[in-house]
Amino acid sequence: MLAAGPLLNKSRLVELLKSEKIDAIVATSPENVTYSSGYWALSQWIRRGPQSYVMLPADDLDASCIIATTSLLDQLADQDVWVRNVRRYGFFRVDRSNEPLSALDQRQAALYDLPDEKNPIDALCNAVREAGLAKARLAVDEIGLQPGYWDRLRQELPDAELVPGATLFRRIRAVKTPAEIDRLREAARITEHSIRAALKLAAEGATERELARAFHAETVGRDAFPVLECIGFGPRSAMPNVEPSDTPLKRGQVIRFDAGGRYRHYRADIARIAVFGEPDAKTKQYYNALSAGVQRVLEMVRPGVRTADLFNAAVETVRKEGISHYSRSHVGHGIGIDGYDMPDLTPGSDHVVEEGMVMCVETPYYELGWCGLQREDTIVVRRDGAESFMTMSGDLVVLA
Amino acid sequence: MLAAGPLLNKSRLVELLKSEKIDAIVATSPENVTYSSGYWALSQWIRRGPQSYVMLPADDLDASCIIATTSLLDQLADQDVWVRNVRRYGFFRVDRSNEPLSALDQRQAALYDLPDEKNPIDALCNAVREAGLAKARLAVDEIGLQPGYWDRLRQELPDAELVPGATLFRRIRAVKTPAEIDRLREAARITEHSIRAALKLAAEGATERELARAFHAETVGRDAFPVLECIGFGPRSAMPNVEPSDTPLKRGQVIRFDAGGRYRHYRADIARIAVFGEPDAKTKQYYNALSAGVQRVLEMVRPGVRTADLFNAAVETVRKEGISHYSRSHVGHGIGIDGYDMPDLTPGSDHVVEEGMVMCVETPYYELGWCGLQREDTIVVRRDGAESFMTMSGDLVVLA
Repeated sequence: MLAAGPLLNKSRLVELLKSEKIDAIVATSPENVTYSSGYWALSQWIRRGPQSYVMLPADDLDASCIIATTSLLDQLADQDVWVRNVRRYGFFRVDRSNEPLSALDQRQAALYDLPDEKNPIDALCNAVREAGLAKARLAVDEIGLQPGYWDRLRQELPDAELVPGATLFRRIRAVKTPAEIDRLREAARITEHSIRAALKLAAEGATERELARAFHAETVGRDAFPVLECIGFGPRSAMPNVEPSDTPLKRGQVIRFDAGGRYRHYRADIARIAVFGEPDAKTKQYYNALSAGVQRVLEMVRPGVRTADLFNAAVETVRKEGISHYSRSHVGHGIGIDGYDMPDLTPGSDHVVEEGMVMCVETPYYELGWCGLQREDTIVVRRDGAESFMTMSGDLVVLA
Repeated sequence: MLAAGPLLNKSRLVELLKSEKIDAIVATSPENVTYSSGYWALSQWIRRGPQSYVMLPADDLDASCIIATTSLLDQLADQDVWVRNVRRYGFFRVDRSNEPLSALDQRQAALYDLPDEKNPIDALCNAVREAGLAKARLAVDEIGLQPGYWDRLRQELPDAELVPGATLFRRIRAVKTPAEIDRLREAARITEHSIRAALKLAAEGATERELARAFHAETVGRDAFPVLECIGFGPRSAMPNVEPSDTPLKRGQVIRFDAGGRYRHYRADIARIAVFGEPDAKTKQYYNALSAGVQRVLEMVRPGVRTADLFNAAVETVRKEGISHYSRSHVGHGIGIDGYDMPDLTPGSDHVVEEGMVMCVETPYYELGWCGLQREDTIVVRRDGAESFMTMSGDLVVLA
């Protein structure tokens, strides 16, 4: 059973809006719309262009409002959405039977009966005005707005102060709710099962593509969806984003997985390395150094630690333990409804670890002409340190 | 075997740019970047934010240039990309073995050795200037640009005239190349196989989710990926975007599929209806009317026909054949690397059918409290009419 409750971290949203003196925030990107309301609007996720919004006033979250296209109202009726106010726009025809309607159908009918507010910007401006926010300071997630819509908002709400909201949403999303943590844990578990399923096919001559098929079959069999699927053998494993090909596996080769699906909209991103046969000395030495780098971060993680310090400790450990020339741009990142949430584990980051953050910790090493090695674990930050989502060991997997 | 050659319709691109007096066009959205070059840049597809561009000069397509982040250069080396000029930006570390490099690794190494142009806008502006286009009229796909980047382009290229390019790309993409048609046909076939696989599970008490799992297993087993997966039973099938749930199938219920994956980045979108048991008179009458509407369009399709006329003929046919109150916003759309390409089969459209267009033709009917019925076929327009991609009949599937 997954934890109940909203995906949205309501108290953190209110706290951050208050500290930035922002009266309301508007979600426009698919990630932020689903995160802040629970509403997953299909077309917005699978294409670029379709518009759905959520407006959330800092003083009264119960007055939050979803702006939805009429053609996606059925999803709003069927999903677990906590936001009660809805404005719809656009023509879409759904007929109605004379038979008595089920509760679900009644919810749909009530949504279709709302007035048509013509277009998403008009509907959003109506929501802002009705909430008494026409002269307020509004943070608007700039990522999901159709080009030109920012200027239209400025024209329609001349007395409001508009500021970009995407970074603020990233900060809100950084600390996960119990419902999010459970989805992320399950996404990670499904990815581990998928890696194991793929490894069962490892044999002389088996192809990357065959392993990928087994990986995805396991993922969809567990109600998750493929997103990231880097699976490479031998020298191809040195490609950071290796796409499964018809290349056959040879004895002695490394198999690198950097992969993960999405489960109930939440992402996984895990790396494991197997060797088909006995690993040579360099592979063992390098992998153990990389793994020690991850391990060092896992030991250091607790609320209050600077992520730049985690980065430095990881790189230093890898260098000391066996790859003296090791160099990286980051050693991990948050993960959530987006694949790269806060915090950034980079040398220049000013992020500080907080309880409830979910992070991928990774130390990849790519050597053209040789192979790629990588360990990537996912953890949640608890009061006293890291709780790992992993059930697979972080050691090199040696296949007989 | 799929047809060789680029996804991009080069002659149509040149012709449309010339007729609009545009000197070059810049792709920025993932769809347009992959379409115009063959380059599928992973992060750009699975997140919002990462930037990859393709600049295509009308006078000399061989001088086209890809702008890529350093962290995704491996994909450029490994994929079938016809654009030869590349500019890279950003730091990403990949080490190099002392062993001799394979041809693939040499291509990667050459890309990593390019100078770092720091950020995507600087790299794009350098490409524009070097192509002698600093004072030219440039169409820039506005959909994929990060917010604020349009203004940066205007500042950096003060003598260029910038116009939005997304609609122009839609017009270019409307007429498919042989390579695209083959991918679209295969995507449709895979979806048909997936519908058949799901229907094998139809039995009293089987759930929507169980059918969906079988659908997706077939899709990934054939190297395609899930995108659209509306599968609904009985009254739930009246939800236009029904998401598979744990609802069990009962005798006499309709099963509606409106679904399709993507195969080598190209989309499918097909609808079929099965009835679990003997359909009643209303279901038969309504379905046959809807199917006749699709059939009428398939018979009328040929180069030169107005899509508004197709719309009117479809609606009129459905009304005459059995649903006198039938009303719709559209009866189909183009399909390609995006799920909704040109042309639009709408009453107000000014689009005209052209040879090489690939279209989904559909007449859905949703009745709350009863069910949803829909036939959606995919066809390619040939000189003398529609060539269907479908191998499944468009008749109601009756399951014993």
